[in-house]
Amino acid sequence: RQLHREFLRAGANIMQTFTFYASDDKLENRGNKLSYTGAQINEAACDLAREVANEGDALVAGGVSQTPSYLSCKSGTEVKAIFKKQLDVFTRKNVDFHIAEYFEHVEEAVWAVEVLKETGKPVAASLCIGPEGDMHGVSPGECAVRLIKAGAQIVGVNCHFDPLTCVKTVKMMKEGVEKAGLKAHYMVQPLAFHTPDCNCQGFIDLPEFPFGLEPRILTRWDMHKYAREAYNAGIRFIGGCCGFEPYHIRAVAEELAPERGFLPAASEKHGLWGAGLEMHTKPWVRARARRDYWESLKPASGRPLCASLSSPDSWGVTRGDAELMQQKEATSKDQLKPLFDRSKTH
Amino acid sequence: RQLHREFLRAGANIMQTFTFYASDDKLENRGNKLSYTGAQINEAACDLAREVANEGDALVAGGVSQTPSYLSCKSGTEVKAIFKKQLDVFTRKNVDFHIAEYFEHVEEAVWAVEVLKETGKPVAASLCIGPEGDMHGVSPGECAVRLIKAGAQIVGVNCHFDPLTCVKTVKMMKEGVEKAGLKAHYMVQPLAFHTPDCNCQGFIDLPEFPFGLEPRILTRWDMHKYAREAYNAGIRFIGGCCGFEPYHIRAVAEELAPERGFLPAASEKHGLWGAGLEMHTKPWVRARARRDYWESLKPASGRPLCASLSSPDSWGVTRGDAELMQQKEATSKDQLKPLFDRSKTH
Amino acid sequence: RQLHREFLRAGANIMQTFTFYASDDKLENRGNKLSYTGAQINEAACDLAREVANEGDALVAGGVSQTPSYLSCKSGTEVKAIFKKQLDVFTRKNVDFHIAEYFEHVEEAVWAVEVLKETGKPVAASLCIGPEGDMHGVSPGECAVRLIKAGAQIVGVNCHFDPLTCVKTVKMMKEGVEKAGLKAHYMVQPLAFHTPDCNCQGFIDLPEFPFGLEPRILTRWDMHKYAREAYNAGIRFIGGCCGFEPYHIRAVAEELAPERGFLPAASEKHGLWGAGLEMHTKPWVRARARRDYWESLKPASGRPLCASLSSPDSWGVTRGDAELMQQKEATSKDQLKPLFDRSKTH
Amino acid sequence: RQLHREFLRAGANIMQTFTFYASDDKLENRGNKLSYTGAQINEAACDLAREVANEGDALVAGGVSQTPSYLSCKSGTEVKAIFKKQLDVFTRKNVDFHIAEYFEHVEEAVWAVEVLKETGKPVAASLCIGPEGDMHGVSPGECAVRLIKAGAQIVGVNCHFDPLTCVKTVKMMKEGVEKAGLKAHYMVQPLAFHTPDCNCQGFIDLPEFPFGLEPRILTRWDMHKYAREAYNAGIRFIGGCCGFEPYHIRAVAEELAPERGFLPAASEKHGLWGAGLEMHTKPWVRARARRDYWESLKPASGRPLCASLSSPDSWGVTRGDAELMQQKEATSKDQLKPLFDRSKTH
Repeated sequence: RQLHREFLRAGANIMQTFTFYASDDKLENRGNKLSYTGAQINEAACDLAREVANEGDALVAGGVSQTPSYLSCKSGTEVKAIFKKQLDVFTRKNVDFHIAEYFEHVEEAVWAVEVLKETGKPVAASLCIGPEGDMHGVSPGECAVRLIKAGAQIVGVNCHFDPLTCVKTVKMMKEGVEKAGLKAHYMVQPLAFHTPDCNCQGFIDLPEFPFGLEPRILTRWDMHKYAREAYNAGIRFIGGCCGFEPYHIRAVAEELAPERGFLPAASEKHGLWGAGLEMHTKPWVRARARRDYWESLKPASGRPLCASLSSPDSWGVTRGDAELMQQKEATSKDQLKPLFDRSKTH
Repeated sequence: RQLHREFLRAGANIMQTFTFYASDDKLENRGNKLSYTGAQINEAACDLAREVANEGDALVAGGVSQTPSYLSCKSGTEVKAIFKKQLDVFTRKNVDFHIAEYFEHVEEAVWAVEVLKETGKPVAASLCIGPEGDMHGVSPGECAVRLIKAGAQIVGVNCHFDPLTCVKTVKMMKEGVEKAGLKAHYMVQPLAFHTPDCNCQGFIDLPEFPFGLEPRILTRWDMHKYAREAYNAGIRFIGGCCGFEPYHIRAVAEELAPERGFLPAASEKHGLWGAGLEMHTKPWVRARARRDYWESLKPASGRPLCASLSSPDSWGVTRGDAELMQQKEATSKDQLKPLFDRSKTH
Repeated sequence: RQLHREFLRAGANIMQTFTFYASDDKLENRGNKLSYTGAQINEAACDLAREVANEGDALVAGGVSQTPSYLSCKSGTEVKAIFKKQLDVFTRKNVDFHIAEYFEHVEEAVWAVEVLKETGKPVAASLCIGPEGDMHGVSPGECAVRLIKAGAQIVGVNCHFDPLTCVKTVKMMKEGVEKAGLKAHYMVQPLAFHTPDCNCQGFIDLPEFPFGLEPRILTRWDMHKYAREAYNAGIRFIGGCCGFEPYHIRAVAEELAPERGFLPAASEKHGLWGAGLEMHTKPWVRARARRDYWESLKPASGRPLCASLSSPDSWGVTRGDAELMQQKEATSKDQLKPLFDRSKTH
Repeated sequence: RQLHREFLRAGANIMQTFTFYASDDKLENRGNKLSYTGAQINEAACDLAREVANEGDALVAGGVSQTPSYLSCKSGTEVKAIFKKQLDVFTRKNVDFHIAEYFEHVEEAVWAVEVLKETGKPVAASLCIGPEGDMHGVSPGECAVRLIKAGAQIVGVNCHFDPLTCVKTVKMMKEGVEKAGLKAHYMVQPLAFHTPDCNCQGFIDLPEFPFGLEPRILTRWDMHKYAREAYNAGIRFIGGCCGFEPYHIRAVAEELAPERGFLPAASEKHGLWGAGLEMHTKPWVRARARRDYWESLKPASGRPLCASLSSPDSWGVTRGDAELMQQKEATSKDQLKPLFDRSKTH
């Protein structure tokens, strides 16, 4: 609730239900212990999002994402049944629209869209892919075309890559869509991490994922740049994914204040472009109270023993590969051993 | 309230009142607009800290810090009167002990200790200095001796430098104290930023201060190392300052769980040393579910156009220099212009 | 002479005449003061190369390169006349074969090949382009096809990019050639500098060019890797360009000793893969006398205030742009001023 | 001969005989195979140096350096006998003065000075130490005092550290000498590698030593800065050690041309501060023909997967430690194995 509230105050006007990856097959995967059913979790998430949305002028979006069942080569019928169970909760809780997000394979995203559109509410579809396309090599443009044909009104990408890479990918989607004579709205919800070194699998493959990503976190000034680039690319659903904190969204909202016509509530806490530093006791810090200082700053890492880029793990396996079969049981020591041996220590 | 609560759940057992720099002369400095009196702010801060402390087994510490009046060369009597006003609130609200923290000049910290000790409650004194000593060149060892002689039971450093630099500085304090035949407890509350490139003024001088520090943020694994080093140095009040988020404190608490005898409440949300990754869908991420992976990782910055270290601004002015005289009025454009001209764009 | 000799001893079996860019229009460009005619320089270069080639088992190759006249939009007839003047010297001095090298525009390289082939001696053609193709956007594959059709027996790239980028570009050439049903031999003569940050113009655009490139210099171990990759790509004319010192060529020759059947003369000066360190007085240096140590080393720059990559100047002008018109007169202060103003300080 | 000649043309006016480490005990150490006696090598080196010195206005300096015998705990008498054998050659060949250089232990350097001064010719003494002092912990100031008292007229440091570290160390020597009421001339011959990450043992301990140091090589602009700093520190014997190429010495000579009154011969090959770029065909390169461009450039490494600093090997052993006993026999596989095991792969 507090998270929703902080993002609302930072300028967000869509509250996404915290239902990410909350399908039953995921909740039961690899020994995860459950105190609640998937439906219970999803219902509580809808209530929280709606409660805070009502504190402001925000919509509630119910989201589904890719499933371990798809990775394990289950059929379209089986996978769709999983989405349907989640959708039933969203319908009961009357969310405003639906998002099929975080799909690595457009085939599964199409299945999700086909299920979600049945309620008649708007459907957004967002893949976690980069310029190289989905895990089966389908290009961003072709992915977007398939999603629109399946019934999505909004298409785009989320997670896995940094803002500029995501904007570039959505541009490729837009080109593909326009070339096909179709129309759509566009969305982008990137990481708040710099990931120039990613391969097609995104930040999952980076050795720092998920517990050593701190040096890659974007500054608020990076966010200004991202928001402007996304807007200029014709994207109008501009948000964030892993790594975004409320102050990042606030920077996006501040950059786009001229277009939106208002500043977010949380802007009352500080001055734009570091203006509050005019009150600092030290004169050399007051000297930083200006836009060009922050726009041109190239921040140091403070980590001289670390490199600037990493070599991604590149196992190159995806749906259809035996290594990706999921299981209900906890991963055993015998299963972990060969993984540890194969893995590099970075 | 939520911040206190998250730190409590992360393992903190001291709730510091959010009264940092909340003296009247600071609140009225350089055009800051006030909706509340200093006393009102300090009272509310005490209530919040006590409310959450009561939810667990925590103490409440009331804190005072350095004043613009000292920088502006006001007398000891004047500066002490400011501390006294803050202390009156703490006494009324019955905090458990006092901290004089974030002092760049040991002289002013001694004055604060002399005021705080009058209530008979324990007094901790913490300077924002590094191995080179205070802004007037007094060494860490000598600073500690003076603070103890003034009446502090706990001495140490906070803010301005990264964890390992702070631990090193407290070690120097301890050596000075022991050499002088005195006894004390020791405290450390460093930044959660890597700052190997700082000069004696600390991170204030880094060009990234305060809005471009993200690449310097410590990982949880850095925190494990810090907690162990601090403990091994004989420090028992081990905390954090700017940049610390609850998960950082949780890592400190987890590292010291054997010594404390318990894990913090928030540890139920994850497995130690990345153990939760055993449930990840991707095998190469499951391969990271082990301590040696994270202990040896050197995380990349993802910023190949940025350097690893910065050249600090080094104006080298301190109390006694005309440039540091404070004022009630907002900084004017005429005052800012020469600062902008003098400042480098980094 | 000494340079030729050192490269010969390092394993080179082609001595390129030091006639790079030695056309009359270049020698008279922008105020360059001449003590010798182009023909005199080219003749002396042929004599030096032949003298040293005779000390071993090496061939002499006479080289021509792109001309300021082409950049200044002179006609094919005019440019060919310049090549013809150089060729006359090579014919008089009886070099073994010809190289048309360092061409940014395939059109001009084709003209050079058409001139050089007239003598009946073998002709090699080498462009200073990367994977993006020539300055007019002609792809590497198409460039290679045009050069072969013009009469070149050997095609490839030289200069402007680092070894791995050059090998990648020649691979693209080879694919284009094979797709067109043609046959050729392949050559590569890359920089001895790491240039991952280059745009299509190559290292000319890097802010470090040409007097700050030191941190980019390849190690001998990088050279082993390059030589193997080039050989595996089917390239058999494997050499170097700017930045190569004799010990770099020696490393190439040592890597390919199994294929060539012999080690170069200069290998008697050291042991392979650091074996000579077995004689070092310090035990921790003797510990480095092994291949896997050097193969896995990621050498630090010792420059913590410098970034790992640069932003290239990207003026994006090429033949046909008024800014590239050349002149006999020295560049005047009035001409330099707007350039200095436009240029970034890096 | 060619090396001497290039350094002479670059502005050097001292030709050091190539007799570095050429004592008999070193030449026979750890299985090194000898085609010549030490005396033969030293004689040839004297002849070469004298021949080239006579081509210009240069002096010849005969040099001795530390011995494996000292490391192996041989007595002063034994070690001095080794120096005496080298000195006999220098005397026979009539060098102009002597240098005792590259000593890690001031004790052994004092022995060398005591031998060298017997001829009555000037003696320079140069240690390969940094600000932390010699391997037995004797401070730079104390080292200098002992060397002067032993008979050296010139004292300083060479090798092991980068230019700015070496200048700093000589400054410490100067302070010590002046404090002791003594007088001397000062010399500095640093590495041409950036080594901010070294410990007291210098670049020997860096993982890149000796075959991966390329990214650390100084630019000519770094050399200008070094020469000026050394001169300003009162040092008048300003040279170079490992990593220096003739163009580095030329930059030193060009920086000090106002003080010396002339430019070196090799300066005719180029314009100062990049002035020759005024003739470049590309306008954005002509824009670099100016001093402030090169002075402010922070050159990128082109190696985004490499860090900027390294962790030195720190075995911390020195004379007196069994691990440093030398031997005539080649290092055996059995001796290497434990070293390989102990060594890190960087």
